[in-house]
Amino acid sequence: MDVGPDFFAEGRRRLYSSVLSDVLDGLGCPEHAMAAAIRPLDDNAVLFGRARTGQYIDCFEAIEGENPYATEIALVDDLKPDDVAVLNCGGTERYAAWGELLTTAALARGAAGAVIDGQTRDVKPIRETGFPVFARGIGMLDAKGRGYMRAFDLPAQCGGVLVRPGDLVFADIDGALVIPAARAEAAVRLALEKVAAEDTVRAELARGDRLADVFARHRIL
Amino acid sequence: MDVGPDFFAEGRRRLYSSVLSDVLDGLGCPEHAMAAAIRPLDDNAVLFGRARTGQYIDCFEAIEGENPYATEIALVDDLKPDDVAVLNCGGTERYAAWGELLTTAALARGAAGAVIDGQTRDVKPIRETGFPVFARGIGMLDAKGRGYMRAFDLPAQCGGVLVRPGDLVFADIDGALVIPAARAEAAVRLALEKVAAEDTVRAELARGDRLADVFARHRIL
Amino acid sequence: MDVGPDFFAEGRRRLYSSVLSDVLDGLGCPEHAMAAAIRPLDDNAVLFGRARTGQYIDCFEAIEGENPYATEIALVDDLKPDDVAVLNCGGTERYAAWGELLTTAALARGAAGAVIDGQTRDVKPIRETGFPVFARGIGMLDAKGRGYMRAFDLPAQCGGVLVRPGDLVFADIDGALVIPAARAEAAVRLALEKVAAEDTVRAELARGDRLADVFARHRIL
Amino acid sequence: MDVGPDFFAEGRRRLYSSVLSDVLDGLGCPEHAMAAAIRPLDDNAVLFGRARTGQYIDCFEAIEGENPYATEIALVDDLKPDDVAVLNCGGTERYAAWGELLTTAALARGAAGAVIDGQTRDVKPIRETGFPVFARGIGMLDAKGRGYMRAFDLPAQCGGVLVRPGDLVFADIDGALVIPAARAEAAVRLALEKVAAEDTVRAELARGDRLADVFARHRIL
Amino acid sequence: MDVGPDFFAEGRRRLYSSVLSDVLDGLGCPEHAMAAAIRPLDDNAVLFGRARTGQYIDCFEAIEGENPYATEIALVDDLKPDDVAVLNCGGTERYAAWGELLTTAALARGAAGAVIDGQTRDVKPIRETGFPVFARGIGMLDAKGRGYMRAFDLPAQCGGVLVRPGDLVFADIDGALVIPAARAEAAVRLALEKVAAEDTVRAELARGDRLADVFARHRIL
Amino acid sequence: MDVGPDFFAEGRRRLYSSVLSDVLDGLGCPEHAMAAAIRPLDDNAVLFGRARTGQYIDCFEAIEGENPYATEIALVDDLKPDDVAVLNCGGTERYAAWGELLTTAALARGAAGAVIDGQTRDVKPIRETGFPVFARGIGMLDAKGRGYMRAFDLPAQCGGVLVRPGDLVFADIDGALVIPAARAEAAVRLALEKVAAEDTVRAELARGDRLADVFARHRIL
Repeated sequence: MDVGPDFFAEGRRRLYSSVLSDVLDGLGCPEHAMAAAIRPLDDNAVLFGRARTGQYIDCFEAIEGENPYATEIALVDDLKPDDVAVLNCGGTERYAAWGELLTTAALARGAAGAVIDGQTRDVKPIRETGFPVFARGIGMLDAKGRGYMRAFDLPAQCGGVLVRPGDLVFADIDGALVIPAARAEAAVRLALEKVAAEDTVRAELARGDRLADVFARHRIL
Repeated sequence: MDVGPDFFAEGRRRLYSSVLSDVLDGLGCPEHAMAAAIRPLDDNAVLFGRARTGQYIDCFEAIEGENPYATEIALVDDLKPDDVAVLNCGGTERYAAWGELLTTAALARGAAGAVIDGQTRDVKPIRETGFPVFARGIGMLDAKGRGYMRAFDLPAQCGGVLVRPGDLVFADIDGALVIPAARAEAAVRLALEKVAAEDTVRAELARGDRLADVFARHRIL
Repeated sequence: MDVGPDFFAEGRRRLYSSVLSDVLDGLGCPEHAMAAAIRPLDDNAVLFGRARTGQYIDCFEAIEGENPYATEIALVDDLKPDDVAVLNCGGTERYAAWGELLTTAALARGAAGAVIDGQTRDVKPIRETGFPVFARGIGMLDAKGRGYMRAFDLPAQCGGVLVRPGDLVFADIDGALVIPAARAEAAVRLALEKVAAEDTVRAELARGDRLADVFARHRIL
Repeated sequence: MDVGPDFFAEGRRRLYSSVLSDVLDGLGCPEHAMAAAIRPLDDNAVLFGRARTGQYIDCFEAIEGENPYATEIALVDDLKPDDVAVLNCGGTERYAAWGELLTTAALARGAAGAVIDGQTRDVKPIRETGFPVFARGIGMLDAKGRGYMRAFDLPAQCGGVLVRPGDLVFADIDGALVIPAARAEAAVRLALEKVAAEDTVRAELARGDRLADVFARHRIL
Repeated sequence: MDVGPDFFAEGRRRLYSSVLSDVLDGLGCPEHAMAAAIRPLDDNAVLFGRARTGQYIDCFEAIEGENPYATEIALVDDLKPDDVAVLNCGGTERYAAWGELLTTAALARGAAGAVIDGQTRDVKPIRETGFPVFARGIGMLDAKGRGYMRAFDLPAQCGGVLVRPGDLVFADIDGALVIPAARAEAAVRLALEKVAAEDTVRAELARGDRLADVFARHRIL
Repeated sequence: MDVGPDFFAEGRRRLYSSVLSDVLDGLGCPEHAMAAAIRPLDDNAVLFGRARTGQYIDCFEAIEGENPYATEIALVDDLKPDDVAVLNCGGTERYAAWGELLTTAALARGAAGAVIDGQTRDVKPIRETGFPVFARGIGMLDAKGRGYMRAFDLPAQCGGVLVRPGDLVFADIDGALVIPAARAEAAVRLALEKVAAEDTVRAELARGDRLADVFARHRIL
């Protein structure tokens, strides 16, 4: 898919995950929602971009003379504008795969956020940057001697959903979802239409119309 | 129990769940607290009202020509002022049983809140309405093709506690609890008395009295 | 260890848990981090002090004529400035071991906070006091007839880490950790040094230096 | 699929789940394995037949004058030879959906077994009949007043896998799997071939050949 | 309740847990079933006797000069014929509260078995004795320095059910249940009747009668 | 440690895990027991040998032209008599890391067993070989396209315990434990002594001596 920065910027401004999720259901992609345990560090965060996947493996001691962060550093240094680091740590609570310094480096490259199936740390300074980070948990332990990124840009699961390089990721306070590359433009277009339709429904309900009548008219809930 | 709107409004203003919980313990009802995983969307939410229960069942595809929301719509359209929708989805993470449009409709009928043993979505717009929603989780997936309300106004478990139609539900930042209909007036009266007694205890502790002495005087902790 | 109040006050002002954690790793103490489920009631809370441990046991009915809070009261009345109540309730969801009145009493004695491997209640008034409380969960149920403190100042696990009387505890938004008494001064000194080094790294990354280069220069991530 | 009793009888005699599973992987159906928690009551059980699905819903008291077993009875009375009752109780530990009397009735109709995403009871007499029952757990509680079958012959999840009426189910000591109807003949044919190939591999390994050499020759592990 | 050894011996010979469970449901005691995770060491074990409860507490090091087994020894030495040790270890996996030597001592006193909400060890020699042991798990770790019995003959939960001294416990391959003392004679009498009725139902189903007809005649499933 | 085959053969014949566990406690190694979820495929299995560790990583599709089993094959082909394959799959339920063909190859090399922190398959034929396999679960899914061994003979966790190459592993029906290389000879010698002492204790208890008296005499429980 060849989309420009406006595509992502507009999506962040106008879309939300529940509408995109309904649209993906309608497009025959019901397995798009990451586990609910993957939460934003900041309730106002909205993340939308291209997935750059990383896969972690456990280790149990630091190896003398090796840089345990080498692959992770290579991925972060290679991030492009609107890229999203999607890291599969298997949900581990043994270490945090993300933190303030990676955030600073990713921001400097224009990345759109990070989604971690594992822990992040440095919550306070990350929040101050405004960089959208979604993670399964928060923990202070460094990865060194506990785990390291083994490879990137391979298909990887995150929150129980398979993410392929090139897929898009959208996340907000209701959760994180994956948009398969082939459906991205259709999904976004239909979602923008549904946002408008929901405005009408909301207004009719707010003035006291019966839900049964409103649903009969618009078939939206 | 025949109580008016003042009863609920005063309870929301003056009571809190921990005091009601202590009082229910004293009245011989120790099984009143829903699971701690049921949390408010907004830390300031206070919910107090009459339970209207709904029971969900899983499904695995939408059925052509059927309205999957029919029973849920019927319950929401039937909500009375100070009613609370208490929905048992068995703690599922497969779909969200509550969202913004149901909130809008419930508010229009004067309902007092919703407690979901399952997920809700649309957290941001719900928070903006101020409608108190307590749920086990947050997720973006619509119920269509995943689950639907099968029946309402039957006894139903929520957060591990049996709720019967007519029971009251109180919930705040410390959690959600069920007040059996037959104990409602006694529980509220005793809780208002205990609130006053705790003010005295707190003042004595704040000025530095030993906890042992204060407890010996008031038997409250 | 014989340290004065300045030691703790400076630590609260200048340190954070992720840096202390890295330093403890370097000192050969990798098992210092409590379970990630132990979270602060307030995201801004910083807790640093000496551990005073308490061990709870389940019970299943209140015993006539006995004070179920006796040992807990004894511990709280014995708290010294900069002490931290570290309560092992085995992660129970059956009752809350901490609340507003214990907070008020602990504050009056100059205690530095409480870490509960179990539930706390009275979240709203505790937040108003500014007293740092970290807990595995929130629940409204009183301990009476459900559990009681059996002994204090014995070694106790909290969040999966063994805490011995005299150990220090530090906790902030990234989690809670234990500093063995014998390592406390070294850990704090090295952590203060690392905080300064990270400022340099952050600045270089923010101006766009490649992560690989920055890491090669400073060996910090 | 139109297959006769010989098809099932031969499958039970000659196939096993791990070979069928490898074949389904090769046919592009990797999501065929039910959760490992679904175990046979008897280690020697082999189950192979056509799925007849049932969907349960929780309830919380028996309803006066209603037969809580009505739908379950209808399904069991409708079982045909080589049918397998596949019951989705959502993994509940609240009640047992299967037991000795249902087993006796199912056996009398020539059914091939039962797979329960929930509990069974009467383990001892069921074992004596030789009827293959696979379940997530064992428990003694009757379903009455706790749950009931709401519908049958609809798509239903069992052990995390979607089962459609007409799909085949195979289960043995290594677990239970679902064969989509459209792949059934190919899967069984290929599995019978693979069984033969594994005999060769096993013989070569047993005589001491290096695994690397054997794998290079046969590409089977 | 004053019952003799024949009462227990006959119960062990003729009853089973699923029938007793149905009868307790009918007597208005639906909360009698321990968690399904509590399993027999031997599938043929049948346990029936009077509960003698013990309550454990965690510790984290052995205390010099103290006998960590003192209370446990006192309970076992006090066991009477047909007594059942019911030990609440809170489901811990930290240590095994039961083993071969306690079994040998309990057998020598005529005890009827042990139910452990925690782990047992020495599975092989225990099986050889034929002494019925039901436990949540199997593990090799001794309790010394990990936990100890704090008190006995107090109300205690086991497998999620409250057991009071004097209650009866019955357990077999379908699980473990508690019979409140006041219902013991009624429950056993009714269960013996139900066993006979089920023989008729089973015979009718085995000869091929429709389940619907059999249920209509006998109202038993 | 330099021990011959007699050392292992005698250990398998005369030792059991609970005695070794007590001895390791006494030697100051209390963290030796793998998680209780790691169970033998056969209740009579006794495993004792030198650990050969393997570390797995998840993947999500098979890579064209690569042999996903390459490292696993290399480890199995390199097994020496009395070696034990100790495989850390992170407890995954996504695939089985062990099966019949690996068992056949390992047996041909004189290996002493396998311990899998994950699943095994082919339970029936493995049991027939008598090769001791301990695993966290049973499942039929092949590792291909789901996970692969990334490295071997590095320190690896198994069942929550760190295993270093050269450590010994002992496992029987009560569970699996790790004996650090440096303690192996002392542990085995002391365990053989304790086995003898327990015979005396057992005999005294069996003849009816009070547990309190026997414990006072022998300090063994």
